[in-house]
Amino acid sequence: MSDETDTGELRRLLTAAAAADAAGRTAASTPEERASWLTAAADALDGAADELVELAAAETHLPATPRLRGELLRTTFQLRLFGEVLADGEFLDARVDHADPGWPMGPRPDIRRVRVPIGPVLVFAASNFPFAFSVAGGDTASALAAGCPVVLKAHPGHPRLSARTGEILRDALVAAGAPAGVFEVIHGVEAGVEALRDPLVAAASFTGSVAGGRALFDIAAARPNPIPFYGELGSVNPVVVTPGAVRARGEQIAKGFAGSFTLGAGQFCTKPGLLFLPEGHGLEDALRDAVAATSAQPMLNERITSGFAAGLDRLRALPEVRVLAGTENAGDGTGATLLATTAAGFAKSDAAVREECFGPASIVVTYSGHAELLGLLAELEPGLTATVQAEESEVDDVRALLPALTRIAGRLLWNDWPTGVTVSWAQQHGGPYPATTAPTSTSVGTAAIERFLRPVAWQGFPDALLPPALREDNPWRLPRRTDGERSE
Amino acid sequence: MSDETDTGELRRLLTAAAAADAAGRTAASTPEERASWLTAAADALDGAADELVELAAAETHLPATPRLRGELLRTTFQLRLFGEVLADGEFLDARVDHADPGWPMGPRPDIRRVRVPIGPVLVFAASNFPFAFSVAGGDTASALAAGCPVVLKAHPGHPRLSARTGEILRDALVAAGAPAGVFEVIHGVEAGVEALRDPLVAAASFTGSVAGGRALFDIAAARPNPIPFYGELGSVNPVVVTPGAVRARGEQIAKGFAGSFTLGAGQFCTKPGLLFLPEGHGLEDALRDAVAATSAQPMLNERITSGFAAGLDRLRALPEVRVLAGTENAGDGTGATLLATTAAGFAKSDAAVREECFGPASIVVTYSGHAELLGLLAELEPGLTATVQAEESEVDDVRALLPALTRIAGRLLWNDWPTGVTVSWAQQHGGPYPATTAPTSTSVGTAAIERFLRPVAWQGFPDALLPPALREDNPWRLPRRTDGERSE
Repeated sequence: MSDETDTGELRRLLTAAAAADAAGRTAASTPEERASWLTAAADALDGAADELVELAAAETHLPATPRLRGELLRTTFQLRLFGEVLADGEFLDARVDHADPGWPMGPRPDIRRVRVPIGPVLVFAASNFPFAFSVAGGDTASALAAGCPVVLKAHPGHPRLSARTGEILRDALVAAGAPAGVFEVIHGVEAGVEALRDPLVAAASFTGSVAGGRALFDIAAARPNPIPFYGELGSVNPVVVTPGAVRARGEQIAKGFAGSFTLGAGQFCTKPGLLFLPEGHGLEDALRDAVAATSAQPMLNERITSGFAAGLDRLRALPEVRVLAGTENAGDGTGATLLATTAAGFAKSDAAVREECFGPASIVVTYSGHAELLGLLAELEPGLTATVQAEESEVDDVRALLPALTRIAGRLLWNDWPTGVTVSWAQQHGGPYPATTAPTSTSVGTAAIERFLRPVAWQGFPDALLPPALREDNPWRLPRRTDGERSE
Repeated sequence: MSDETDTGELRRLLTAAAAADAAGRTAASTPEERASWLTAAADALDGAADELVELAAAETHLPATPRLRGELLRTTFQLRLFGEVLADGEFLDARVDHADPGWPMGPRPDIRRVRVPIGPVLVFAASNFPFAFSVAGGDTASALAAGCPVVLKAHPGHPRLSARTGEILRDALVAAGAPAGVFEVIHGVEAGVEALRDPLVAAASFTGSVAGGRALFDIAAARPNPIPFYGELGSVNPVVVTPGAVRARGEQIAKGFAGSFTLGAGQFCTKPGLLFLPEGHGLEDALRDAVAATSAQPMLNERITSGFAAGLDRLRALPEVRVLAGTENAGDGTGATLLATTAAGFAKSDAAVREECFGPASIVVTYSGHAELLGLLAELEPGLTATVQAEESEVDDVRALLPALTRIAGRLLWNDWPTGVTVSWAQQHGGPYPATTAPTSTSVGTAAIERFLRPVAWQGFPDALLPPALREDNPWRLPRRTDGERSE
């Protein structure tokens, strides 16, 4: 089942997805119906938790408890949360402008606008979250919620888990009333690329490396008809520690930081890769102790393990960078490494210090004062997060940093760590390139559904031909904007 | 003033825009302030109406009244309407999730999300609407409303008008309190391309031809850091006429159609380029009369006039296509041409029949019945609009067409004509490629502001450091979503 999907089979699956798309529209699948599909899918996955967690542990080296069980819980919670989004209805952004002969720029016709599904979506699964960013993950959940069939390109890191999750998900969706073709899994790099080039695909999403994501983005952009490509690629996730925070709780920060950059063997897209500390911070011993207290963990697979080793060698070879702390590799486990440099060393080092190094490594950069820190931040590439560790008494200093931090991140954290991304209404997981290829969107949280919808306006239509979301009597009781006024 | 902007000057202007961006954020320009800037700009442009309309008429051959005066009215109305969007506040999509230890997937931190300006925007002006889609047009209005400085690449078709409009706009904005650098005009193809490649530019927008827009889209996508590119490129705008509509008001439809496809010398992106009529419609004479009643009009410039002639020659040379009606060129004016073919002829003709021909030409395609019509629609490329002329008694037939029409258009019209695009809350001007390069967005209507905003989440921040939109006491009285519930 992990064999490459061949051309004939791929075309059959894409055609089925397109048919499901057409059928879904003609049959006018309602948000309420789709909510019931998602709930059924979540229930089916929860029911198969033992089997799925065992498969995942075998294929990814991640611990079953608490990690994989927690991740599956997150995944099924996410499916159900999109059911709440569907019940709420605001995601449709329904707007009704009645005809207005007195509209200042000239008579206005009756015009009504609502979002419709964009069409079949191709999702590229990630390796590092075999549930939450894979077959039944956030991209799948949000695309299905939007009313789009999904063709899921499995990650080769967990092929058996992908196939099994896909079976359970598809069967549950169809049993709950979704059209055949609403969800299918494909395997293999070639099949993924071929699908991305297929005219039947209307949008694509991806979570993974900058190199892989950029290659796919380029393919999507080079199509005869380019399509939206939502790639979540890479992030350095800087952490700024103020002098006050060092004084007040330096040791605690050292511990929190070591825990965060080594969590899951550093294989989180939100792993803090840079720690800015004031010169003379005096935390070297605390950092060494904190790193020493972490234990070597196996990485996802051999390719990732060797990629990390190569990235680390590159960093260690830089003359301006020294090793501050580290733990040995042990058995299958990869140890953690903490590097260090100064602001001047960082500025003159090659790009490696500014790029994501996927695995349990991070770099401490010392700064001499506020101005130097601002200069360092101005040089950073955008990413998913930026974190501040500071004291309440330093709010004026921190306020002066916020424009620079906002420029380079989609999520800012105060006295917390960036690993751990809650799924909620206000979550934002995205940012300017290379964090993502689509900085106006998020791949986590309820707003992720907006990626897979496009607006359509109906001008002058009789009520009988309007979609329910736009009918005069508002049969779905949607929140709408009517003649410019918000209403329910 | 219409000379190519040179490299040094361009870099100076982009740096000024970036500075305005940074200053705008640190000074926390409020939506209320930006609304006052836009109102001041609208007042200044209205005040200079005589001068601007005279310049526009001289450079574009468009009639001063009602066309250019009406277009300027639309333009200043649009600036003021975005002021209403700013006062309303929902465009910020503010969301507040309080910390929740009982959140089902695990304890939730306090997390709050709001949209921020994306950064300096490069706008490429269009030729065919020298006010409404040019210097002070919809892209500029929506980007400024979002809080982004704008660098405007003038269209070479009206350089003096562009420079003068730019001066008035910039001076009014700055006099109203906007930072220097908030708006500048550049000239020349090379300067536009160089600006599009500049790292200081965060997003770009364009209205124009498929060839030009695709070339710029490709440049934006090939940047080391790709940026959003909102291109509105081309559209065929099919019109479907049902048998009942032909019987009930065939002559009136012929007149309305001839008026729409020749409006403004056919230089509207929403010009109806295909008219689907049932076989045996009997409207040939009515169409000939209607076209004969139109008068030759000068096109925008020589390049467009000769481009239209070449496109028309290509269509006339197709063996399956015949000329049904036409008016002669007269003086500087370009006459209208109506072509005709059958469903079979359309299916086997080369791509020219399915592509936009910019100018006063359109093609009648006859269909034998509902199934053939559906087959024809399934073959069409997406566009900005699709129109149905039908009787209320035919709603069941029309309902069966809607999925196909929705697939290929961003705006559907019932018994109306697609030329004429109102600016309102529910307007949608966009669609899948080649209508636009960004099908999830609109370039007309209040939702156009969303293109130039990106979301940022604040996690765990003390109130004193949060942007006003997210503070606990909601000082701007914004509509927000709090813990998943909509509230005001």
